[in-house]
Amino acid sequence: MDIKEILAEVKRGCAEIIDEARIEDLIKNYYEKGENFYVKAGFDPTAPDLHLGHSVVLGKMAFLQKHGARVQFLIGDFTGQIGDPSGKNATRKKLSQEEVLKNAKTYESQVFKILDKDKTDIVFNSKWLNELGATGIVELTSTFSVARMLEREDFTKRFREQSSISICEFLYPLLQGYDSVALKSDIEMGGTDQKFNLLMGRALQRIYDAKKEQAIIMMPLLEGLDGVNKMSKSLNNYIGVTENAKDIYAKILSISDELMFRYYELLSKKSLKEIEKIKEDIKNGTLHPKIVKENLALELVERFHSKELANEAKAEFDRVHSANALPSEIAEFELSGGSVWLAKALVECGLENSTSAARRAIVANSVSVNSQKIKDEQMQLELGEYILQIGKRKFAKLKVKK
Amino acid sequence: MDIKEILAEVKRGCAEIIDEARIEDLIKNYYEKGENFYVKAGFDPTAPDLHLGHSVVLGKMAFLQKHGARVQFLIGDFTGQIGDPSGKNATRKKLSQEEVLKNAKTYESQVFKILDKDKTDIVFNSKWLNELGATGIVELTSTFSVARMLEREDFTKRFREQSSISICEFLYPLLQGYDSVALKSDIEMGGTDQKFNLLMGRALQRIYDAKKEQAIIMMPLLEGLDGVNKMSKSLNNYIGVTENAKDIYAKILSISDELMFRYYELLSKKSLKEIEKIKEDIKNGTLHPKIVKENLALELVERFHSKELANEAKAEFDRVHSANALPSEIAEFELSGGSVWLAKALVECGLENSTSAARRAIVANSVSVNSQKIKDEQMQLELGEYILQIGKRKFAKLKVKK
Repeated sequence: MDIKEILAEVKRGCAEIIDEARIEDLIKNYYEKGENFYVKAGFDPTAPDLHLGHSVVLGKMAFLQKHGARVQFLIGDFTGQIGDPSGKNATRKKLSQEEVLKNAKTYESQVFKILDKDKTDIVFNSKWLNELGATGIVELTSTFSVARMLEREDFTKRFREQSSISICEFLYPLLQGYDSVALKSDIEMGGTDQKFNLLMGRALQRIYDAKKEQAIIMMPLLEGLDGVNKMSKSLNNYIGVTENAKDIYAKILSISDELMFRYYELLSKKSLKEIEKIKEDIKNGTLHPKIVKENLALELVERFHSKELANEAKAEFDRVHSANALPSEIAEFELSGGSVWLAKALVECGLENSTSAARRAIVANSVSVNSQKIKDEQMQLELGEYILQIGKRKFAKLKVKK
Repeated sequence: MDIKEILAEVKRGCAEIIDEARIEDLIKNYYEKGENFYVKAGFDPTAPDLHLGHSVVLGKMAFLQKHGARVQFLIGDFTGQIGDPSGKNATRKKLSQEEVLKNAKTYESQVFKILDKDKTDIVFNSKWLNELGATGIVELTSTFSVARMLEREDFTKRFREQSSISICEFLYPLLQGYDSVALKSDIEMGGTDQKFNLLMGRALQRIYDAKKEQAIIMMPLLEGLDGVNKMSKSLNNYIGVTENAKDIYAKILSISDELMFRYYELLSKKSLKEIEKIKEDIKNGTLHPKIVKENLALELVERFHSKELANEAKAEFDRVHSANALPSEIAEFELSGGSVWLAKALVECGLENSTSAARRAIVANSVSVNSQKIKDEQMQLELGEYILQIGKRKFAKLKVKK
C-alpha cells in the first residue's frame, strides 16, 4: 500500500477532515522514522454499550493503528464524578470509582473486537482534570468568551429559543479540549455533531503552547436499520456489538440495498477497490445483491463473535426463511387453568407486550398457530400443545394445561 | 439605644437592604441571647489602598460590630492566584502567597482604624475555593444558567454591544456567592454595583442547603470631592485613608456644603439626631457651615490619625488661608547651573508635572514668586533664593546656584 492509497482509506467515509496535511505528515513520519502518533477519541463513562454507530469511529482508528497510530481511548469519567447540586437532574448521580472501572471493563470487552489492544491506551480524564484544581479550571474558562461559546450550533439554537443552558455546559467543551492538551493528541476522532468540541482541542493546544495542533477526523453519524434516522438505542434501529450472532445476521439481512453499501463504506474492512468491484459485478448481473448482503452480515458477525457463529447464523436464517420451517430452538411455555385467549397467550409467551398489541397482530394477519394463520382475534386455545408464531421470526411453544 | 433606633442607624445612608427582617432578628437575638452574627464583605487582594469610598462599607460594619456582628473581612485572593493563559491581559500576573499576605497586612493597617480588631476575622477565599477542586467548581457552574447570568446589568450591556465577556467572568459571581456558603454569612455588605453578586450568595446558600439566606446591605458609591463622580483613585477626586493629616483636612474643607452633609450621613459617627440638630442650627443662623465642615474634617483626620494631628492640621490650614502667610514647613530645593526658567523650576521642585502644565499655571495667574504673582511665562530666575507658590497650598523654597 502506498501513502496515497493509505490516505484514500483514511478519508474513506469521513464527513470532514481538518488539517489533512498533518495526518499525511504523521503517517509518512511513521513509515520513514518509525515514530508513532496519538489518536484520541472520547467515550461516555455512563453508557458502555456500543452499537455499530460507535464502531464507525473505532474502525477508522483500527485502520490508523496499522499505520502508526497509538489510540488514546478516553473514558470521560471526570464529569461522572460530578453530582448535580441544582437538583434539576435527578437521574444524574455521581459514579463511584468502582462503577467507572466496571464500565471501563465493559468497554474493553467490546472495543478490542475492533481495536488492536497492544496499540491502545485506555485513559481516564479525571486524572489530569482533577490535577488542574479549582484555579486551573477557572484559568481554563478565561480562554474563551461567552459569545464564542454560543456559536456552537446547539447552544445558538437553545439560546434563541430561550431554553436553559447551564454554565457548566460551557465548561464541557473546554474540558474536552483540555484533554487533548494533556494527552498531546495528534489526531482527534469524533462524530460530525462534535465539530465544535473537536476544534476546541486545537484552539487550546495553541493557547497552552503545544508545539502542534491536533488534526481532526469527523465520521458521519451512521444511519440506523431504517436507513433514515441515525442509529440509536432509543430509536431501536440499532445493532449492539454485544448482540447475539443470529440477531446481528438477521438485522443486516433486513436492510435496504442502498443502506447496505453505506454500511460497506463505513463498516466493512473491504478496501475501496474491492467495493468498487462488487458494485460493478452487481451491475453486470454476475453477482446478486443478496449474496453481497449476506457477506456483509457474515463479516460483521465474525468481527463481533466468530466465523463459526457467523456460519451458523446464516444457516439458521436460511432454514427459517427459505423453507418457512421452524427454527431449531423455540422457547417453551406452560399455562395452567384451562383454555386461554390467544392474545393473552401471545403476551404470556413474550411475543407481544400487551393483549391489545397481540390483537392488532392477529388483525394484521401476522399470527399463526401451528402454522395456520389466525384471523379471529377472540380465538381461545383449549388444552393441548401449540406452536405460536408472529411474523417470520418470533416463535413460542405453548402447553395449555388444566 | 432601643432596637428601633439601632435599625434606623443600620438603614442610614443605605442604598438598598434585602431581607431587613433577618437583620432585625439577628440584632434582637444578640441582645436577647448574646449570640453573634456574621457580616461579610469582600476586598480585592491586588489593591490594598483604601479611600473614603471604601470606608462607607467599613463604617457600617463597625456600627454593626457594636450590636453583635463579627466581621468576615474577606480578601479575595483565589482569583489572584490565577494567571491569564489567554495572554490577553498582560498586566494580570499571579500573586504569590507572599504578596497576598503583604497586601493583607496593608489592609489590616488601614481597616482597623475603622473596624474593631477583636470582632474581625480576616479570611482568604483561596482556602475553601481550592478545596472545592476541579469537580466542585464544575458542580458550582451547574447551578446557574447562561441566560440568568447574562441578566447582570453590565453583562447584558456588553453582550448587546458585542464586547467580549470571558467565561471566567461568569464564574466570579458564583465564586463570590460560594464564599457566603463556606462562611455561613448572615449579612453581606457591598456597593450597589455588586447587587447581582450579592444576591448570588443568597441563591447559593439556598442551593447548598444553608439553613438561612444572608441578608444584604448595599451602600451607595460615595461621591468624590467634585461631588459628581464616584470617588476613585483614577479620577483623582479621592481621600486615601493613609493620606497625611493636613491633606485630608484641606480636602474636606474644599468640598461643597451639599456634599458635606452627604459625607456626614455616610462617614460621620454622629447620630442621625445630632445631624438633624446641626442642620436646624445652620438654618436658624446659630451655626456657621464652615464650623460644621471643620468638625467633619477634624473627625475624619482623628479617625485616620489622631486628635493631636487633627488639631495641628486645622491650625496650619487656618494660618495659610486666613493670613495668606507661608506654611510653617516648606520643602527646599537647589538648582545649580545659573539662571533657570521659572516653568522648569516649578517642575524641578515638584509643584507641577510638566513645563507645559507650569506655563498654563502661570498664564492662569496661579503662580507667585516671593509672594508676587507672575504673568510672564518666559520668566528666568537668576542666582538667588526664592519662595515658589502655585495656588494656595503648593509651596517650595528654591536656591539657584552657579
